[in-house]
Amino acid sequence: MLPDPFPEPDPSLTPFFKPRGVAVIGASLDPTKLGYGLARNLVQSNYQGMIHFVNPHGGSLFGRPLYTNISQVPDPVDLAVVLIPARFIPQTLEEIGQRGLRAAIIGSGGFRETGPEGAELENECLRIARAHDIRLLGPNCIGLLDTHLPMDATFLPPPGPLPGDVTFISHSGAICAAVIDWARGQGFGLSHLVSLGNQVDVNETDVLAPLAADPFTRVLTLYLEGVSDGRRFISEAGSLTRQKPIIALKVGRFASGQRAVASHTGALAGQETAFNAAFRRAGVIRAETSEEVFDWARALAWCPPPHGRNVVVLTNAGGPGVTAADAIEANGMYMAQISQETQAALGGLLPPAASLHNPVDMLASASPSQYAQCLQVLLNDANVDSVLVILPPPPMFTAGAVAKAMIPVIHAAEKPVVVALMGERLIQEAVEHFRAAHVPEYRFPERAASALAVLAQRAEYLSRAANAKDSNLEVDKNKAQLTLRSYLEARNRSDRSYIPFEVIQTLLAAYGIPFKPLKLAQSAQGAAELAGELGLPVALKIASPQIAHKSDVNGVLLNLWDAESVKRGYEQIVGTVRAAQPQAEILGVYVQSMIPDGQDVILGAIQDPQFGALAMFGSGGTEVEGLKDVAFALAPMTEEEAQYLLDSTWAGRKLYGYRNLPPVDYQAAMIALRRLGQLAADLPQLAEIEINPLRVLPQGQGVFALDIRASLSA
Amino acid sequence: MLPDPFPEPDPSLTPFFKPRGVAVIGASLDPTKLGYGLARNLVQSNYQGMIHFVNPHGGSLFGRPLYTNISQVPDPVDLAVVLIPARFIPQTLEEIGQRGLRAAIIGSGGFRETGPEGAELENECLRIARAHDIRLLGPNCIGLLDTHLPMDATFLPPPGPLPGDVTFISHSGAICAAVIDWARGQGFGLSHLVSLGNQVDVNETDVLAPLAADPFTRVLTLYLEGVSDGRRFISEAGSLTRQKPIIALKVGRFASGQRAVASHTGALAGQETAFNAAFRRAGVIRAETSEEVFDWARALAWCPPPHGRNVVVLTNAGGPGVTAADAIEANGMYMAQISQETQAALGGLLPPAASLHNPVDMLASASPSQYAQCLQVLLNDANVDSVLVILPPPPMFTAGAVAKAMIPVIHAAEKPVVVALMGERLIQEAVEHFRAAHVPEYRFPERAASALAVLAQRAEYLSRAANAKDSNLEVDKNKAQLTLRSYLEARNRSDRSYIPFEVIQTLLAAYGIPFKPLKLAQSAQGAAELAGELGLPVALKIASPQIAHKSDVNGVLLNLWDAESVKRGYEQIVGTVRAAQPQAEILGVYVQSMIPDGQDVILGAIQDPQFGALAMFGSGGTEVEGLKDVAFALAPMTEEEAQYLLDSTWAGRKLYGYRNLPPVDYQAAMIALRRLGQLAADLPQLAEIEINPLRVLPQGQGVFALDIRASLSA
Repeated sequence: MLPDPFPEPDPSLTPFFKPRGVAVIGASLDPTKLGYGLARNLVQSNYQGMIHFVNPHGGSLFGRPLYTNISQVPDPVDLAVVLIPARFIPQTLEEIGQRGLRAAIIGSGGFRETGPEGAELENECLRIARAHDIRLLGPNCIGLLDTHLPMDATFLPPPGPLPGDVTFISHSGAICAAVIDWARGQGFGLSHLVSLGNQVDVNETDVLAPLAADPFTRVLTLYLEGVSDGRRFISEAGSLTRQKPIIALKVGRFASGQRAVASHTGALAGQETAFNAAFRRAGVIRAETSEEVFDWARALAWCPPPHGRNVVVLTNAGGPGVTAADAIEANGMYMAQISQETQAALGGLLPPAASLHNPVDMLASASPSQYAQCLQVLLNDANVDSVLVILPPPPMFTAGAVAKAMIPVIHAAEKPVVVALMGERLIQEAVEHFRAAHVPEYRFPERAASALAVLAQRAEYLSRAANAKDSNLEVDKNKAQLTLRSYLEARNRSDRSYIPFEVIQTLLAAYGIPFKPLKLAQSAQGAAELAGELGLPVALKIASPQIAHKSDVNGVLLNLWDAESVKRGYEQIVGTVRAAQPQAEILGVYVQSMIPDGQDVILGAIQDPQFGALAMFGSGGTEVEGLKDVAFALAPMTEEEAQYLLDSTWAGRKLYGYRNLPPVDYQAAMIALRRLGQLAADLPQLAEIEINPLRVLPQGQGVFALDIRASLSA
Repeated sequence: MLPDPFPEPDPSLTPFFKPRGVAVIGASLDPTKLGYGLARNLVQSNYQGMIHFVNPHGGSLFGRPLYTNISQVPDPVDLAVVLIPARFIPQTLEEIGQRGLRAAIIGSGGFRETGPEGAELENECLRIARAHDIRLLGPNCIGLLDTHLPMDATFLPPPGPLPGDVTFISHSGAICAAVIDWARGQGFGLSHLVSLGNQVDVNETDVLAPLAADPFTRVLTLYLEGVSDGRRFISEAGSLTRQKPIIALKVGRFASGQRAVASHTGALAGQETAFNAAFRRAGVIRAETSEEVFDWARALAWCPPPHGRNVVVLTNAGGPGVTAADAIEANGMYMAQISQETQAALGGLLPPAASLHNPVDMLASASPSQYAQCLQVLLNDANVDSVLVILPPPPMFTAGAVAKAMIPVIHAAEKPVVVALMGERLIQEAVEHFRAAHVPEYRFPERAASALAVLAQRAEYLSRAANAKDSNLEVDKNKAQLTLRSYLEARNRSDRSYIPFEVIQTLLAAYGIPFKPLKLAQSAQGAAELAGELGLPVALKIASPQIAHKSDVNGVLLNLWDAESVKRGYEQIVGTVRAAQPQAEILGVYVQSMIPDGQDVILGAIQDPQFGALAMFGSGGTEVEGLKDVAFALAPMTEEEAQYLLDSTWAGRKLYGYRNLPPVDYQAAMIALRRLGQLAADLPQLAEIEINPLRVLPQGQGVFALDIRASLSA
């Protein structure tokens, strides 16, 4: 898909990020109260706008008056931060609105998170806010901060984070507190931190554009428990990631509910599958652990993009070099083949016993200048895309001296350099140097390698995004919609989710997906006649609204070569299915002529409740859930996305040919997948649609849907 | 396999671990020399045996005389540590031997790691050592230390590690330095550290038993670049892991060479596959990163074993609780269902808005005593096997106070409790308390969950090991060996690795693996006659020493029902194969009667150069390498091990039945796998042997090998 236009920050959110004056409602003289903490942080953060405190008891705090009501607060003021008991907040929002403010942060808890009464109170707040055009952040959040403006509108105990270039947006307040403390301990800074709380109004998608617009923010990081509007999140995030990287830690998988499904696609498409597809579409980098978020954020903030995945390891010891090489390969990158010239240049700098291959082992005697010079030589090698430097506590020099020697080389480089500083106390000075110089350093080679892999992933995404092209599929959307609508109007209401073959065939035809016609026989004789008409040999398939998986009840017979076999087959299928499923209504048996040999795959699509149409490709047949050789993408999809699905599965890779399997029509399979995805996206009434199998014929001969199943949304 | 007897430490290694006196040869007055560092460490470590220094220049060091030669060193002395230039070491070893010492650590480099000359010098050292019965540690190592004896015989800059209960054994010296520094920074101790260097004599397996015998060592950790003798490592480690856990970080995968292979099994069995199988057999826990080694070691050293995989999360904030729950499921554990009684008891301790389900969220107001009391309630619940406590910087109390309140409860518990202390500076006091109390703490819930998973893995291993039983397979090893030997004697030397069907059939018969006899036809007419004899329908398969994968050249025809089809089939196969592979010598076509329907799997075995026979089970056919649905174990294997292979693959799981696939003879497939493994173990001349497919018939009807291939070791 072509990118949506780069989203403009919503001007109604400006008061949260650039307020001219802030009123703290519930500012308190009691140091154990959150309203005290917030007032203190705002003052101590050196916020340059006007600071106003409101407390019904009056008095003064930090040399400022405590107004007894927001109505008394003088201009400029355009953001209220509310930290009073929940039950008083609706009235306070009325007053905020009357005072003319259009933005409020509700830090207080006691809302939706406490049960139905709290939820009602929260809804009342939203109604009042809407009536006054007030945007709300929270409730039940710790607020937000900006280290560059600067402004600390949180109530967390000081000190706040150091100024930096990473923005952190979180659905969890407790995680914010831990992240600030941890980031300071790790010596890296944040630009913004936003705690979203219950998200009664402003949500994770709303804040992306204003935060990405901040020139100090180089990377956005998200702690997500879900997204409020999947397609909007993809659209906004997808545009922003072309400018700045977004890393997301999405949690809450274990709670994923199971849905009722009738298709293989539905059974395999969990909530996490949809999130992975959405993140890939939007170019959002998904971290699996909290540590990865910040390991990767530092590299993305501070390193140039690599041109490829070839990494060289520069070390003064063999063991950690081997560990790094393993980690590089484990992260899907390659050990660079360094050139003859590079080896010669290294040879001139190092003792004879040094290893001039990758990993380049300078030996334990390596000096700061050898580190710097060898690094420069390696950076000059066109075969090298990035460098992982390993620095255990060096026996003869200090790690700090090595750091100082390397930093100018790293700063001048147009390739990423990351450092594995192994140890703790003996490397502390080097840690400080690297952090100050914005060179990503990690305690172990494994984490450094993972950061390099994310840099490569990001570079590849940007290049893919720059080269994205879309091709029109030429589908007859109107015809498909009309067909489905007339079926829905005419159908028997008891057949809630069933769609007969005849309807599905029309849909496929409108979307240009070839299928071998199926005709319904209602007697053995009728089947034999249809077989003659369609052309022998034929396949027979049970026709019953209650039977989704026909093979499971032995409802399919293939390769019937004569009329007699077709008749016997009809009786056999009906008899077997009737015995297996006495309740099932049997409409008859479908007759279909057999198709030439090829490779069989499965195509499917479902409607994901968060992200809409989600398409699947993979190994089909009856063992889909067992083999789990499938991949998913949001639909509709570009050619690149469809190819990615094919190439991520064994079913797709073998279309190119494998051993005695001749190559088949990969291109036709890829297009059929795109067409099915488009169909699902255009017809959201289809809960599930699945072609199993799709027969992929020899090259140039296209594909045929051999069996199709679809069901309607409830 | 039943355990080997618990290995006795080799008495010749005692001087390394309990020396009565140590002579430092190369002790130096120059603080930049390693010989100075080692002398200093030995003295400062408070080693209670005699310390002797040797330096040809004489003088004194640290108040002790510098003897000019080892011959002058008085008793007691039973360990020499040598830190002099490599070229002088052979002579010195002679003198050490003459002085009557039987153990030496060679710290100096300049040996095998520098090239062929160094390797020759190293071999000379070994010859001299053997002549004098001297055991050698190194060369090119940093030495060893014991924090409890105490003795520091390394030359690393101080301070050494804190006393602790984890032993670290390493092939890399640089990693040792980093680990000591890192462990001290992380506040945990080591009992022993052994740097193995070039391992000219003493290797990783030799030191296991003496170190495991140390009462202060609760966990052994290994940094391995390989093993010297695979089967001996498995035997020693396998016995020791029944007493003490061993964690290994095995590196060097990227360097794994590819072998020339003719079978699917060989193509899929990499060096790492063999290591994984070996570690599983020996009960060695394999870590993927350096951080995991020590994350897990602390939990294994300090926690009781859990009874199962049900974990409860105790938290004061929702977000980290969700993260922990995800990590628990991602690590293959389960969120415990806590009982009604437990919920009632928690309800009595917590405010109404708290969540009494798992994760138990006490809310941000949770006090130290609420943490301790809720923890106790959860530990009392029979549904709970272990507890993950989450402690972000608490808003109202100090994390330190929470730690102090919980520690007595954790100490009294018979279930593991690990803590995710989220943050850095605000939790430092709590970190200190937990470390002192030997409670494993981690910075993030993900790492805590991974530690709990390893505790469960360890408990399951111990229970498996305690219940291991072996059943005899009743095979005719003699007959198989005789058959193979007579074929080897009689064969044409040009057929280097080929073994004809007739021979393989005899081998399978001797090992009780059923197969449908194949007979060789050398004409179309002959094939038809054989088909009549064997019983129609039949299959035809090309017979050629040069063709390993018959389907790849369309050399197989199935389901031929009459003599005419057999004749046509013979001509077709011979013609097709001749066209495809004009160089191949065609012996004729094998005729085999067809087998009833069932499920097809692959069984294979190869000889791994490190660990011997390695067996494979999985999805067969021609797409074995594409589907990669296979699992490996060392052969021979127990029933439990064979079942583990079956149950780890989709091919094995579907033997129980799946959808319209009826259950088949799982037991017979499992036994056939064991029998093939036994055959490969008994006949190491077989480089590869593979049954593809093995047809597994309906329950009670056994299995049939349908196609077999074997090749000889070069």
